[in-house]
Amino acid sequence: MSLLLSLPQLRGPILSQLRSTTSIFTRKMSSTEHFKQSPHKLLVIPGPIEVSDEVLFANAHPSMSHVSPDFIPIFGDCIRMMRTVVDTAEGQPFLIAGSGTLGWDQIASNLVEPGENALVLHSGYFGDSFADCLETYGANVDQVKAKIGAAVSQEAIEDALKKKKYKLLTFTHVDTSTAVLSNAKAIVETVRRVSPDTLVALDGVCSVASEEIHMDQWDLDIIITASQKGLGTPPGLSILVASKRAMQVFNSRKSRPTSYYASWKKWLPIMQAYESGKPSYFATPPVNLIYAFHASLSAITKAAPSLAERYELHREASRKIKAAAKELGLKQLPLDPDFAATGMTALWYPDGLGAGDILPRLAKRGIVAAGGLHVDVKDKYFRIGHMGITAVEKSRGDVDSVIKALKETLAEATAEK
Amino acid sequence: MSLLLSLPQLRGPILSQLRSTTSIFTRKMSSTEHFKQSPHKLLVIPGPIEVSDEVLFANAHPSMSHVSPDFIPIFGDCIRMMRTVVDTAEGQPFLIAGSGTLGWDQIASNLVEPGENALVLHSGYFGDSFADCLETYGANVDQVKAKIGAAVSQEAIEDALKKKKYKLLTFTHVDTSTAVLSNAKAIVETVRRVSPDTLVALDGVCSVASEEIHMDQWDLDIIITASQKGLGTPPGLSILVASKRAMQVFNSRKSRPTSYYASWKKWLPIMQAYESGKPSYFATPPVNLIYAFHASLSAITKAAPSLAERYELHREASRKIKAAAKELGLKQLPLDPDFAATGMTALWYPDGLGAGDILPRLAKRGIVAAGGLHVDVKDKYFRIGHMGITAVEKSRGDVDSVIKALKETLAEATAEK
Repeated sequence: MSLLLSLPQLRGPILSQLRSTTSIFTRKMSSTEHFKQSPHKLLVIPGPIEVSDEVLFANAHPSMSHVSPDFIPIFGDCIRMMRTVVDTAEGQPFLIAGSGTLGWDQIASNLVEPGENALVLHSGYFGDSFADCLETYGANVDQVKAKIGAAVSQEAIEDALKKKKYKLLTFTHVDTSTAVLSNAKAIVETVRRVSPDTLVALDGVCSVASEEIHMDQWDLDIIITASQKGLGTPPGLSILVASKRAMQVFNSRKSRPTSYYASWKKWLPIMQAYESGKPSYFATPPVNLIYAFHASLSAITKAAPSLAERYELHREASRKIKAAAKELGLKQLPLDPDFAATGMTALWYPDGLGAGDILPRLAKRGIVAAGGLHVDVKDKYFRIGHMGITAVEKSRGDVDSVIKALKETLAEATAEK
Repeated sequence: MSLLLSLPQLRGPILSQLRSTTSIFTRKMSSTEHFKQSPHKLLVIPGPIEVSDEVLFANAHPSMSHVSPDFIPIFGDCIRMMRTVVDTAEGQPFLIAGSGTLGWDQIASNLVEPGENALVLHSGYFGDSFADCLETYGANVDQVKAKIGAAVSQEAIEDALKKKKYKLLTFTHVDTSTAVLSNAKAIVETVRRVSPDTLVALDGVCSVASEEIHMDQWDLDIIITASQKGLGTPPGLSILVASKRAMQVFNSRKSRPTSYYASWKKWLPIMQAYESGKPSYFATPPVNLIYAFHASLSAITKAAPSLAERYELHREASRKIKAAAKELGLKQLPLDPDFAATGMTALWYPDGLGAGDILPRLAKRGIVAAGGLHVDVKDKYFRIGHMGITAVEKSRGDVDSVIKALKETLAEATAEK
């Protein structure tokens, strides 16, 4: 008799005995390998992204003390693994409960003193906000703006740096609003040639772990990011890595940091303590999220595929989606294909079609994509994210699902128009 | 034949068929009722506290867009349920990714303008830190300090308010470092009588949902808290509720808020949008944690026992633990039993015994308690938390487990000394 097939027919005492056996499976469920997240639509917005069962299970870790001997090395490992992700030997990571935006406050309140000059390279929505943040803490901010779909040119950066002495230059590595990728390596080269002391901050919220980054080799001073994009973890963690140069600038500041919660005076001893295996307290870390982050960072930095292979898999997914979009007649927002993001794609709606024609039809097919975000053209384009497990774990078939749904959606929308 | 009893003997094809049936349970596991967190020591520090299976399962919710039509009402519900928890009709809640500490930044940067006066009532560790935060954003801060184990007297508050005009008065409802409970109702009465316009902020990180609070009735202006204590959710959410008076003061400020990430200018439209069922973006909310928070708030505000009954259950648990401690000859830090917290207990070590004698022995018995925190007496006392499900769900037997372990620990420690 097939036990499996007969199950629906079981009744009475046998069924209740079988139910008793579920306790065996219930206990098993407490191990990672058996936890399966609930069925849901495929989340391919440019963050939050799909999160693996392992990472979600870690997010459901039993509640733990933030100073527990079991938790301390987990936090310490996360600090160490973040160095691996951004390829730095001695950069100082900061992991703080908050959204990615808190990274801007960290930069603005720890590295710039009131009255100092900052230069913001603007390649979309996030340039204006970063400038607003810097001004809140007293910086004098200039922006160099690129037109929609473009990154700021090296010539424009050089011109700006020659006109005024800047303490800090910031740029958005991938602007989530436009999918424009800035050339991080070239930007630092320009800065070091023209204004060597200027600190260079990369906003990598939508790039870390999906776009190649070599912090030391490229001589970057600050990288900020968040947990919910390439790093494959639920949102709620502000992540920053500061170079030795940045920490020296911080240590020699004359005024106190202008934020309390984002102050490195408070957080540096905490990061150093946890990394050296000791507890310390300033504010309670998001313990469960750190367990989840640990699970994701372990997959990214300590398992197969390697980090280098992961970048290649992201490029492959990106090529596939961009090629399929092109075939469907969809044009990308980024003007130069060499400076389109690897982890996401931004596409203009075809003539005569809008958000209402595309996004609900994708959703009907189980695909959650995102509308536009750049204020000037918000209703004219949509965005697809392909970071993390969606790009890396080919067996999931996410990229193919997206392409299939996109094809069907366009056909249906065009036919019904 | 008993299927249950025969299970361990199953071999070969029958076992593999039975294994196939686990897929049924695996799918079932995706519903809350079947998720069981891993076995672990009982966490009875004064936060983070034990978190229920339901809440942890919600924390493992599949990744969702922060602007998803499914997520928006979840966030909106959390805002509404927070009003119920602190008993206010029209207070404005703010739910922001961050530690409880971020609530101080919210108060200091939104309600005080540089150069204005703030009065901090100091009943332990957290008074000094709150003062430090206020000063960071430019407030002139005075503190009224109580001796260890005491709250500031109404006379001392009245004296201070008569000497100088204060924009803001803050107090720690339960100082987690000492377990001293301040009399919130009496404090507001004194302020309204002596200096009616002064805003009164209650730091309820260690009190909301475990100590009775009636925001409107007591005329409180600001309550700050965090997710990981009485609210029974993993850490990572800064929660604040502001009165109409506080919002009027905010709306009439002359200078811009002095924090970017904590700015209500940014967050107020977001909270209003989510509550009215519309998406809006400033910084990505901690989506999974909001699902978890929703599960916990639903249990607290919409299920049995009622909120009033929950307070009574907290009082009962507290009485039991404090009575057992007394019987064991342990003395509480709070000098006045009427002003000892309900959600936690702070106990001096008996003569001749210290942290090394007590905490590891409790841990050996599966109980995680906390050491001291108040700098002056850090090594002389320990702390036990009894908030949330540990106090409310009697069937768990947590309070009895704590008392039993404490008895055995003291007996063993005394015998081996």
